[in-house]
Amino acid sequence: MKRPLILVSNDDGYDSPGIYALVMSLRRIANVVVVAPATQQSAVGHAITVQTPLRARPIERGAHFTGWAVEGTPADSVKLGVSTLLKRKPDLVVSGINHGMNTSINVIYSGTVSAATEGAVLGIPAIAMSLASHSLKADMSGAATFARKIAAEVLKRGLPKGTLLNVNVPDVPAEKLAGVAVTKQGRSWWDDGFETRRDPVGRDYYWLVGKYVWDDNPLADDVALQKNMISVTPLHYSLTDDQLFSDMQSWNIGKLHKPR
Amino acid sequence: MKRPLILVSNDDGYDSPGIYALVMSLRRIANVVVVAPATQQSAVGHAITVQTPLRARPIERGAHFTGWAVEGTPADSVKLGVSTLLKRKPDLVVSGINHGMNTSINVIYSGTVSAATEGAVLGIPAIAMSLASHSLKADMSGAATFARKIAAEVLKRGLPKGTLLNVNVPDVPAEKLAGVAVTKQGRSWWDDGFETRRDPVGRDYYWLVGKYVWDDNPLADDVALQKNMISVTPLHYSLTDDQLFSDMQSWNIGKLHKPR
Repeated sequence: MKRPLILVSNDDGYDSPGIYALVMSLRRIANVVVVAPATQQSAVGHAITVQTPLRARPIERGAHFTGWAVEGTPADSVKLGVSTLLKRKPDLVVSGINHGMNTSINVIYSGTVSAATEGAVLGIPAIAMSLASHSLKADMSGAATFARKIAAEVLKRGLPKGTLLNVNVPDVPAEKLAGVAVTKQGRSWWDDGFETRRDPVGRDYYWLVGKYVWDDNPLADDVALQKNMISVTPLHYSLTDDQLFSDMQSWNIGKLHKPR
Repeated sequence: MKRPLILVSNDDGYDSPGIYALVMSLRRIANVVVVAPATQQSAVGHAITVQTPLRARPIERGAHFTGWAVEGTPADSVKLGVSTLLKRKPDLVVSGINHGMNTSINVIYSGTVSAATEGAVLGIPAIAMSLASHSLKADMSGAATFARKIAAEVLKRGLPKGTLLNVNVPDVPAEKLAGVAVTKQGRSWWDDGFETRRDPVGRDYYWLVGKYVWDDNPLADDVALQKNMISVTPLHYSLTDDQLFSDMQSWNIGKLHKPR
């Protein structure tokens, strides 16, 4: 059987510890090519570059870590990789390992999830991997091992077209891991504000600050993490609110159509 | 009764024809404050600025067009506007009028939709307005009129928490408008590729090019536009794929948890 091909991307840049740990683990089961942003791209959401062209330069860090650094976003990297840079369509896209969890509302801001979403958009099974630690010294080995196991499972089973798995790993030693939970996107949210500061010439500027308010739904991704479990959430980008779609049939919205 | 307050944003920048048409229409039913990006931000998706602080400068173009230009993304603008710049919480967020439709897959890349999504995230009813024309000379009057009508309807009825309306208006004269349809996000997609060019010093660069492949589901947003109807799609950001969530119960995913 042909060895599978995995495209690895992320949002922290091709040069981050997380992507290195991911590649070194996945290459035990597949050929791995990195196509990732040249620079840090956190919280870019699903941005793509449409006004300017993209550039990509080959990267090589030892024989087993090769690919391209793309001067663009995570979604750009996956789009350019799949359509142009790779010699064949990958069997799987894996994004990560992100420094910091991507659960609940954070999913919509996440560049890590965005790279996986772009894989799903292109009809390729995809996985986003995040570790619930912002420390650059965080131990990625547990997350990297689980990435390989879930990748093997997805290579075997496939995923429905347009669906990705969003995996979040708690920051605990391997012996403290309490298992794996299939979860739903939680409803935790940021109680956001901005801290206003004044620059030396007297103009205001604003730093985003926020308190994370945790969902307590037992099915929520965040709750699994709090129980020291790895959270695996199937996500898609079908955004229609079907309930409101039904309710709006009674709005008699046609009456709004007469101009002026 | 207190006059409602509408926060208007967009992704084309505070200085675009679309936002001007929108403000001039909405101010007939509400107080309107603009909080929009200082510069063009197309296809930024739901990016937010987390690594650097934001700046905002007051704008005024005549007595009726006031607000702030934010050096950030559409989502930044709405977040900063609601939490910090505005004196009170707005009753409605309206984003647009975008030059170019935001239907089907385009929704996930759209800065226009992102501004409205951020309103929904903050618990405020929100509407994204797009006109299916990229021409800077496009006639915005029909879309601006409809924006006022749907805004009045939403101010009256409210929307479920976390839901927004994504409105797309066909580029036809008022007398050709065939009505209004409540629709679902379509499954049209981009058959994407990149055109490779070579710069004067011999390095490749890549331009995104794509052919749009239309969904033909009668409920799809794109199909309404093709029938010269205004499309109104209720969207949310609950991204869990419930079908796969159920199916994954049989994956016996717990077996993946033993480290190494």
